[in-house]
Amino acid sequence: MTFEVGEYLKRLKKTKQRMEKHGVDVLLVTDPANMNYLTGYDAWSFYVHQMLIVMIDEPQPIWVGRYMDANGAKRTTWMHDENVVSYPDYFVNSHQFHPMEYIAKLLTELKQEKRVIGVEMDQYYFSAKSYTTLLDNLPNATFKDCTSLVNWVRIIKSDQEIEFMRRAGTLAEQAMQAGIHAIHTGSRECDAAASIYYELIKGTEEFGGDYPSIVPMLPTGDKTSAPHLTWCDDHFEEGNAVIIELAGCYKRYHAPLARTVFLGNPTDRLKKLDEIVKEGIENVLQKVKPGIYLEELEEAWVESTRKYGIEKESRLGYSIGLNYPPDWGEHTASIRKNDRTVLEPNMTFHFIPGLWFDQDGIETSESFRVTEDGVELLTNFQRGLIQKIPFHFPDDTKGIIS
Amino acid sequence: MTFEVGEYLKRLKKTKQRMEKHGVDVLLVTDPANMNYLTGYDAWSFYVHQMLIVMIDEPQPIWVGRYMDANGAKRTTWMHDENVVSYPDYFVNSHQFHPMEYIAKLLTELKQEKRVIGVEMDQYYFSAKSYTTLLDNLPNATFKDCTSLVNWVRIIKSDQEIEFMRRAGTLAEQAMQAGIHAIHTGSRECDAAASIYYELIKGTEEFGGDYPSIVPMLPTGDKTSAPHLTWCDDHFEEGNAVIIELAGCYKRYHAPLARTVFLGNPTDRLKKLDEIVKEGIENVLQKVKPGIYLEELEEAWVESTRKYGIEKESRLGYSIGLNYPPDWGEHTASIRKNDRTVLEPNMTFHFIPGLWFDQDGIETSESFRVTEDGVELLTNFQRGLIQKIPFHFPDDTKGIIS
Repeated sequence: MTFEVGEYLKRLKKTKQRMEKHGVDVLLVTDPANMNYLTGYDAWSFYVHQMLIVMIDEPQPIWVGRYMDANGAKRTTWMHDENVVSYPDYFVNSHQFHPMEYIAKLLTELKQEKRVIGVEMDQYYFSAKSYTTLLDNLPNATFKDCTSLVNWVRIIKSDQEIEFMRRAGTLAEQAMQAGIHAIHTGSRECDAAASIYYELIKGTEEFGGDYPSIVPMLPTGDKTSAPHLTWCDDHFEEGNAVIIELAGCYKRYHAPLARTVFLGNPTDRLKKLDEIVKEGIENVLQKVKPGIYLEELEEAWVESTRKYGIEKESRLGYSIGLNYPPDWGEHTASIRKNDRTVLEPNMTFHFIPGLWFDQDGIETSESFRVTEDGVELLTNFQRGLIQKIPFHFPDDTKGIIS
Repeated sequence: MTFEVGEYLKRLKKTKQRMEKHGVDVLLVTDPANMNYLTGYDAWSFYVHQMLIVMIDEPQPIWVGRYMDANGAKRTTWMHDENVVSYPDYFVNSHQFHPMEYIAKLLTELKQEKRVIGVEMDQYYFSAKSYTTLLDNLPNATFKDCTSLVNWVRIIKSDQEIEFMRRAGTLAEQAMQAGIHAIHTGSRECDAAASIYYELIKGTEEFGGDYPSIVPMLPTGDKTSAPHLTWCDDHFEEGNAVIIELAGCYKRYHAPLARTVFLGNPTDRLKKLDEIVKEGIENVLQKVKPGIYLEELEEAWVESTRKYGIEKESRLGYSIGLNYPPDWGEHTASIRKNDRTVLEPNMTFHFIPGLWFDQDGIETSESFRVTEDGVELLTNFQRGLIQKIPFHFPDDTKGIIS
């Protein structure tokens, strides 16, 4: 297991306190990050239905999943083996049977069928059909929406979790360096993505890397106006801007990092945008400390950038940590107007004031931790636009000038 | 765009024929693979709510997503720009607003609010909350479950799609070779995963690779009993079995491949299992041809392996093709008992008769296409257990003997 049993028990206790506050007797945890957080369970099995059943009056949760995944659950969780229950394979991708029928039956056997049951209503791995199947098969239960209940427990990290995120930061740095190195006139987007992946996963001599919950994104040229396009096999050309957004990942904990690279001499417009973004980032980071509202960081950004006529439509960032595809964001607090989350030590955020216009865009981001009296960056990487001037040496060596 | 507009129009036509058959006027397509299939849309934006609205009497679908992703939709789809509609960022990860409120309003403006609306009820990217929000905001609509409606259109591939899958097969072969090379006494699981990723994504000189919808899986030693565990940074040791399950991916089309590697001399038990699996695979592949039921392949497997006392709990395989995380399976036909899908030319499957026991497991798989009169393998890779004998050369060179 990744953490000591005591840490899992603490997390479970906090979860039960929230359940009690919400009047929930039984919580069905289907978010794989929440399942991992409470038990240690770590496998790429979330493409089939699975869950933890957390009963408020039982000391151990019950893992339920596919038969072939039960061995993995026994191996990676702290619970007793009898708390690992599995359904037969004919429930998988069936048009006739649904795993929630099995789970409703199990809940009935456990005498939970008349209780208040919390479900994560707005979450990738709890489908509309899962919900209606439970409703149909547990007519005497009362269902409550508990989306993000466990996510809010996750928002404050333990010191060990922070150490994992620092390691993820080291991986992000070395992958960013490899990406910048691999981007040059004549190389391909896929070549750069391959180099980034290699560094992310090989890791360092001391520790290996895990897969990030979002693939590295490399929008190039005109495509920098669209932040979530992935790579293809086009060649980079002089005059291209390339946005690199990636995250290092260590034992499912993330540290994202974004930079913009320019091949050749950037336009004055891009240079100006770069200055505005750097100034804004500096001004926001200076504000970070426990006790303030998250929206105050947004106010600092607006104050810093409004004078240049910049208006940002999208949020400036979000809480990060443990996660699984398709997102490394925690789905709790966002750095934006009206978010009145009060900052506390060991909260962690990806602060990404990306600017996207119709024809171009720029991204520079930092992942940070709130400390006792300020801020700690999770990565140490030269901030701002990275300019690569091709020297055209015969051996294809390229220089990096920023 | 990846395909010509004519191919997208054909796919849309087939989808509408199915909608008509099911009595559905409006189909809300939320599966990113289905969105890509009908329009070309390709971005890692499915971690926020998005969809295609397919109206049976309108020539073009409407893409709806987050504001910052609209540029990507305009760029990668065949529809007119006015058919790309986006919601403001304050809907994202909000505890107050839900994107389906916006979409319900849009459907009302489009005068679709009293029609029969099909939704993909059992799909990762249509949450329980999405469904209840639509129900609440469209009280006069009738909802029908259309899970896998578009998936079933996808099951027969065009010749261009098959060519993409052959390319994916080439990537799978070179990644498998790299993985086998990187697995040796003293190297780490993450080193092997990094080498596999590098080859998958760098691709060949002719074409680059895309990210597979499932990460490479590398269960090692005891962990071979749990097929969906991913890598860590443990070192490989002599006596380890290592299962490699991966897929090459080209423009979102997959060709999966699994092999089992043994460091040193395998036990007689593993050698025997290997022979049984190879014989079973041979017997099944000989049966493949258009016109038979899929369950006949399962019967061939049972007939081949029952005499050795082997009973397989899980299905033997599934339809594959275009996909996004978290699964490369198509969620339509499965190679198992009671699946009466009739094989047709250009159907494609991952045939993976993995055997997992309490202490170990073995996986050997093939991805295949049904041809006019038989079968074509999508990869060409030596079948069966791969034995690596360490020679302990001072320069760490390792030999491969199979």
